[in-house]
Amino acid sequence: MKKFVYSFNEGSKNMRELLGGKGANLAEMTRIGLPVPFGFTVTTEACNRYYEDEEELEEEIVDEICQKMEELENVIGKKFGDMEDPLLVSVRSGSVFSMPGMMDTILNLGLNDETAAALGSLTENMRFAYDSYQRFIQMYGEVVMGIPKSEFCAVFESRKKIAGIRFDVDLAAEHLIDIVNAYKDLVKRCSGKEFPQDPQVQLIEAIKAVFRSWNNERAVLYRKLNNIPDDLGTAVNVQSMVFGNMGETSCTGVAFTRNPATGKDELFGEFLINAQGEDVVAGTRTPEPIGQMARVFPDVYREFERIADVLEKHYKDMQDMEFTVENGKLYMLQTRTAKRTAVSAVKTAVDMAAEGLISREEAVSRIDTEQIDQLLHPKFDEGDEQCAEVIAEGLPASPGAASGRICFSVDEAERAAQNGQKTILVRQETSPEDLAGMVAAEGVLTVRGGMTSHAAVVARSIGKCCIAGCSQIVIDEEQKTLTIGGETFSEGDFLSMNGSKGLVYRGRIATVPPAFSEDFATILSWSDDIRTLKIRANADNPADAAQSVKFGAEGVGLCRTEHMFFAEDRVPAIRRMIMADTEEERREALSKLLPYQKADFCEMYRVMEDKPVTIRLLDPPLHEFLPQTEEETREVAEQTGIPRQRLLQICSDLAEFNPMLGHRGCRLAITYPEIAQMQVRAVMEAAIEVSREKGIDIVPEIMIPLVGIEEEFADVKKTVLDTAEKCKAEYDSQIDYLVGTMIEVPRAALTAGKIAREAEFFSFGTNDLTQMTFGLSRDDTGELIREYVEKGILAEDPFQTIDQEGVGSLMEMAVGAGRKVRPNIRLGICGEHGGDPRSIEFCHRIGLHYVSCSPFRIPVARIAAAQAAIKNRKEE
Amino acid sequence: MKKFVYSFNEGSKNMRELLGGKGANLAEMTRIGLPVPFGFTVTTEACNRYYEDEEELEEEIVDEICQKMEELENVIGKKFGDMEDPLLVSVRSGSVFSMPGMMDTILNLGLNDETAAALGSLTENMRFAYDSYQRFIQMYGEVVMGIPKSEFCAVFESRKKIAGIRFDVDLAAEHLIDIVNAYKDLVKRCSGKEFPQDPQVQLIEAIKAVFRSWNNERAVLYRKLNNIPDDLGTAVNVQSMVFGNMGETSCTGVAFTRNPATGKDELFGEFLINAQGEDVVAGTRTPEPIGQMARVFPDVYREFERIADVLEKHYKDMQDMEFTVENGKLYMLQTRTAKRTAVSAVKTAVDMAAEGLISREEAVSRIDTEQIDQLLHPKFDEGDEQCAEVIAEGLPASPGAASGRICFSVDEAERAAQNGQKTILVRQETSPEDLAGMVAAEGVLTVRGGMTSHAAVVARSIGKCCIAGCSQIVIDEEQKTLTIGGETFSEGDFLSMNGSKGLVYRGRIATVPPAFSEDFATILSWSDDIRTLKIRANADNPADAAQSVKFGAEGVGLCRTEHMFFAEDRVPAIRRMIMADTEEERREALSKLLPYQKADFCEMYRVMEDKPVTIRLLDPPLHEFLPQTEEETREVAEQTGIPRQRLLQICSDLAEFNPMLGHRGCRLAITYPEIAQMQVRAVMEAAIEVSREKGIDIVPEIMIPLVGIEEEFADVKKTVLDTAEKCKAEYDSQIDYLVGTMIEVPRAALTAGKIAREAEFFSFGTNDLTQMTFGLSRDDTGELIREYVEKGILAEDPFQTIDQEGVGSLMEMAVGAGRKVRPNIRLGICGEHGGDPRSIEFCHRIGLHYVSCSPFRIPVARIAAAQAAIKNRKEE
Repeated sequence: MKKFVYSFNEGSKNMRELLGGKGANLAEMTRIGLPVPFGFTVTTEACNRYYEDEEELEEEIVDEICQKMEELENVIGKKFGDMEDPLLVSVRSGSVFSMPGMMDTILNLGLNDETAAALGSLTENMRFAYDSYQRFIQMYGEVVMGIPKSEFCAVFESRKKIAGIRFDVDLAAEHLIDIVNAYKDLVKRCSGKEFPQDPQVQLIEAIKAVFRSWNNERAVLYRKLNNIPDDLGTAVNVQSMVFGNMGETSCTGVAFTRNPATGKDELFGEFLINAQGEDVVAGTRTPEPIGQMARVFPDVYREFERIADVLEKHYKDMQDMEFTVENGKLYMLQTRTAKRTAVSAVKTAVDMAAEGLISREEAVSRIDTEQIDQLLHPKFDEGDEQCAEVIAEGLPASPGAASGRICFSVDEAERAAQNGQKTILVRQETSPEDLAGMVAAEGVLTVRGGMTSHAAVVARSIGKCCIAGCSQIVIDEEQKTLTIGGETFSEGDFLSMNGSKGLVYRGRIATVPPAFSEDFATILSWSDDIRTLKIRANADNPADAAQSVKFGAEGVGLCRTEHMFFAEDRVPAIRRMIMADTEEERREALSKLLPYQKADFCEMYRVMEDKPVTIRLLDPPLHEFLPQTEEETREVAEQTGIPRQRLLQICSDLAEFNPMLGHRGCRLAITYPEIAQMQVRAVMEAAIEVSREKGIDIVPEIMIPLVGIEEEFADVKKTVLDTAEKCKAEYDSQIDYLVGTMIEVPRAALTAGKIAREAEFFSFGTNDLTQMTFGLSRDDTGELIREYVEKGILAEDPFQTIDQEGVGSLMEMAVGAGRKVRPNIRLGICGEHGGDPRSIEFCHRIGLHYVSCSPFRIPVARIAAAQAAIKNRKEE
Repeated sequence: MKKFVYSFNEGSKNMRELLGGKGANLAEMTRIGLPVPFGFTVTTEACNRYYEDEEELEEEIVDEICQKMEELENVIGKKFGDMEDPLLVSVRSGSVFSMPGMMDTILNLGLNDETAAALGSLTENMRFAYDSYQRFIQMYGEVVMGIPKSEFCAVFESRKKIAGIRFDVDLAAEHLIDIVNAYKDLVKRCSGKEFPQDPQVQLIEAIKAVFRSWNNERAVLYRKLNNIPDDLGTAVNVQSMVFGNMGETSCTGVAFTRNPATGKDELFGEFLINAQGEDVVAGTRTPEPIGQMARVFPDVYREFERIADVLEKHYKDMQDMEFTVENGKLYMLQTRTAKRTAVSAVKTAVDMAAEGLISREEAVSRIDTEQIDQLLHPKFDEGDEQCAEVIAEGLPASPGAASGRICFSVDEAERAAQNGQKTILVRQETSPEDLAGMVAAEGVLTVRGGMTSHAAVVARSIGKCCIAGCSQIVIDEEQKTLTIGGETFSEGDFLSMNGSKGLVYRGRIATVPPAFSEDFATILSWSDDIRTLKIRANADNPADAAQSVKFGAEGVGLCRTEHMFFAEDRVPAIRRMIMADTEEERREALSKLLPYQKADFCEMYRVMEDKPVTIRLLDPPLHEFLPQTEEETREVAEQTGIPRQRLLQICSDLAEFNPMLGHRGCRLAITYPEIAQMQVRAVMEAAIEVSREKGIDIVPEIMIPLVGIEEEFADVKKTVLDTAEKCKAEYDSQIDYLVGTMIEVPRAALTAGKIAREAEFFSFGTNDLTQMTFGLSRDDTGELIREYVEKGILAEDPFQTIDQEGVGSLMEMAVGAGRKVRPNIRLGICGEHGGDPRSIEFCHRIGLHYVSCSPFRIPVARIAAAQAAIKNRKEE
């Protein structure tokens, strides 16, 4: 018979899949002798079984839970529902991947009218007993019975008012008994049922409710954002309660073994005296820094320091721990790998490698490339920031810089983002429901909550800058304004915020590209030692090329020559070329473009020197260069002297129903070889001149786009060779050069063996290859792709990450066939996928030589390439 | 050492590739003892060598020719260039595939001033000798020296005029000597060189000129039209001359063993007394029917009948023979498989199978499916034709019916065709230069020439209707008019012509679909016995479906439901559906469309009964149904009451940059499942009702278009199943149905194994599959594809014939993967390639179950499918 429930002494950290992260780590801590309140875990398999059985819990599983409950009673020496010394438990979710705050938790389970009274007598603390009971009813009512939290809050606030009491801590036992009764009435009113008094019923219903919370809206969204599969299910941990709210000798807290924001090697966290865990995370009270504990509970603090050290060494990674002190005794409630900022992740990895805790490979493997993006985002210009007016200060909860318009709601933040507007989401405190708004905003600013509040934790994990606990701010939700020191700001006004410093500024502040930290440079250099893929940049101009070299590019994988034509001083010449009636006129117009192109290429080569630069011949359909609006047409007619009617005629002649599949790419070079001749001449003359000027060997790579037929390539190659050889002869140069092609048409991949007979390199143009393989126009189907991802028709946007099954299989065919015919063929990718870590891993696996991506993605690509190499080596 | 020259007694009919068709058959006739003037053949390899050597003839080959010439002299007993009894030869082209009249021929080679005189003395016929000499100079001057024929004609006519002579036959020896001298002057004036007197020089230069004629413009065009590769080269036949122009006991002629127009089993042909071969073919004199020969040369005629019978039995096919009678002795100059009309081809094949000469399979194999199209072209409505006024009568040279505007030049015919206008090309006589015009015109009408004239032969081979030798017509090329019995018609006036009857009518005559002859029905029924591929029709409405059943369709492979929406009474409802703001409004509008769709499907099922009908769900992007012009928009705004501004907004919201790759196909059914629900309901209700009405079992096949992702199919399939099962329950029906998909997106082919887990059938949508695999929008790149075919980048238009290497390889993958997962998966094709014989052969080879094509292509498809089966069996 299958086992669905494990006591903490039956598991270990290797059983995450079955026990969830929390359950596995509770078992592990138990195993290595740390003080963990005893309990058991209902497995993820039970959760999946629950869903298979149409949200019913099998008799067998219920029986197993009851058996483990008896075992728990024996270990603790208390009885569930006992009238004298009742056993109370917490019921917490715990899935394979940490989803903090996304699912439900119930504390103090086992309390009812009788056991609450018994607890009060036993502890001689009626206030504690009924505080625990009211918390339990509220949590149970909300989680199990679906009564909105706001209903409970309303009752709570009104009773507090009636009692004339301002702070929760001032509520006495009789007030809390009154609230308990009011809550029970509320439950009856809202659900039509009595609040259940049977602890067994409470337990089973609570477990089922936690299973259900796996599929609540925010959990589903979180999984989507974090690429966590929906079918893993959650485990449920049932653990004997310990109480941080038993008075001034009790506390509860959260701490990290290192600083999750900066990576500094120091205990970092917060605690609240006389409180239960939820109080810390929820941000409703602002807790004290963990260091304060050394003063308040010196012995407990030393013990906690020791345990933190044990855990970090045991897990060989930064830990995020929850603990409770009950009457001076320390209990560990949770440990897990800590979420951290990119800065912290980098520093921690480098430090741990230096400490000998992990290898360099492991250090590189640990970097979350998606998160690294944070380090590559612009920061405020330092001078501008110094001049900016600081209007408020809060906790530096998540680093980074953001400028945007004030907004107060998730909806507004999402709407603004859709319109391309940047916003700062300002909230009293955030809750899991706010996730979508936090994703949409540039930064998050909360009035309440500490460094481990929901806002802070989530902002760090999604790389948003965040300032928490900024208490100078007063929000008026009705008026949609906020006031700071008497000054009122409205929704839509600009604010700026520096999440690393916790400073809020008036208005907007300009940003600059980031500089790399020494630690990050170390990770990059270790990555370079490990990776085998070369990294090139997609750069169309010398400025981008220079930036890419700074970021570590080893060449340019795609230089799109058409972008050079769109400049204001050049577009007239290309228009004259397009509107030429004869080949002679076209040649005349092209001869005007030659000096521009040549100068551009000279600059590129001066920047890139002898690094490879792949220059793609003109690709877009010619109509893209023509005026698009009536006004433009009039202007162009005036400039060129070509009659407006004739201009309109040319525009209409060149218009296409499906320009994506139209007269573009190599097709242009076949119909108008003189265009390719001009471009090849510009490339070759520039390469020869800069080679001589700098005394280096430049080997131009000329790339023919949109080839689908071997003979297309052969035709254009002939044009390229003829022109290139002519240039060499004219300059008396022996310069070497390569002629290759984009593989971006499905047929090119299917016939790559033939194309490789002629082509010296392949560069996968995965943007177009994806469009044509799926039959999806990226310009037209953005909304559809979102719909597909939401409905699960697509696991992810294939324009973000290579679709390995379809597009990827074409790439593999092309690599295999190409290499068979020409073993030394150069293979690369220049689609936007070249900067996507999962795509990079795929490129490594199928044996490409390089990936090419936008300059700002280069550091990510360097690390991703190293991780791919490590992973591949491991798998072999 | 390679052998480049073969004597006629060294070859056989199996050596076509080396010796060309003419050479191989001359050798074969020699081999079986028929009277063939001796000679030799210079091989096609020599021709290719000639081109490789930059149009020079290697020393070795020249030497070999000279050796064979000596052998020829020995066999004939005459010497080349001999002053007493000179050997004369003909030099004729002869390629692997017959290209009648496309390349050059030179007769009487070996004549010069001295041998001409000798020939005159020897034959005691100076007229004959100098007639032969002047013909030779003209041919040699034109073919070898490149002097325009018109120059010679001008000289000839002026000399004739000076001599006061009207008919060529009345020219005496002295006139011809005068012409010879004038020709020699002409040659000197035009070429700057003397006419060569050395027979050896004449021979070698003539052979080189024939090699060159392989690449003249009309030969290249002919090869393109007939899909003959350009690299085969031509052989050259050098044969001792026999003379049909030696006087009244000599003649020359062309004859077929059966009637090439009707297929009737009778000697069919023409001859001219005292003439050389070119006179018959060129149509300059109108020859006499071959039957007349029985009267004029009874013995020769009997001998000829015997030889014709021997040849037909030997070759087991209708022969097209050239012969010459020299002084009462019969010589065979050529035999080849006869080109024939479709009618004749069908009758001949059926008859020969009946005679036991060939098998039924062979009979089916012999049908040229491209030609069969002729039988499927509309004919004149019989009633209308009877009422039409016959204005002229000529020879029924090529059957069929045509109505069109008179035009007099190739250019005009081509221009009109490009503008979609139908023309009748009217010419004095046609020459090889007229080929392009004949292709462009609907019919060809000549004033001169017989049943075997150039016009007649070519028209039959390309399936154009033709009336030859219509001498009542007088053409005024200057005025661009023609006169018939005093009435003048101008270019652009309408004529009609019945090529089967030789009748020319005034004005236009309506056409009707053709009825099949009994012979054709026989071929079709034999084909049905042989083929394994099923044939279905692409039919969107009951009329097309009914037509397709008449033509033998075994089902409908593609019923496009959107065409049903475009009808005037329906488009308002679909527009309302598109413009609906809510799902409810959309459902409301769809409910209005349901009865229309259901009625359409009921009609389809009444026509098709229990034959399979594949109904495709809505495919085009919705914007196709919206008004396109401002005027239409205004109208629709009035009709629907939707404000114009809102209408424009909807149009602009739905507009797409690349609609081919946009929101269409199954993507519509995913975003708006209610559309698919309505369509499925219409299909199911119709099928259930007609099943009951007719007491038959209908199994609807519902096809989901544009699937590229397994989950897309699964999503829409769920919608289909839900609706279909609901209908079954409502009607209390147990009807069976299939749900399958188009394979038209490359990714669908690449992931076909997964899609086959859900899909019960695949139908290859090769139109879109070709567009996406090549990245070629058919709407935008027609001109480009023509350019590609001309430049040889594409061997043929991939929208006509499946690109086996690219698109075909995707199909093969899909077939293999689909069948592996679902062994009984139904496989078909519904792209336009389904009616193309070469594509059908491919579909047979990769194991599809059926092809689906337009109703008029069904007979072709039936035969092509049989031929594919035969070919496949042979290869196995």
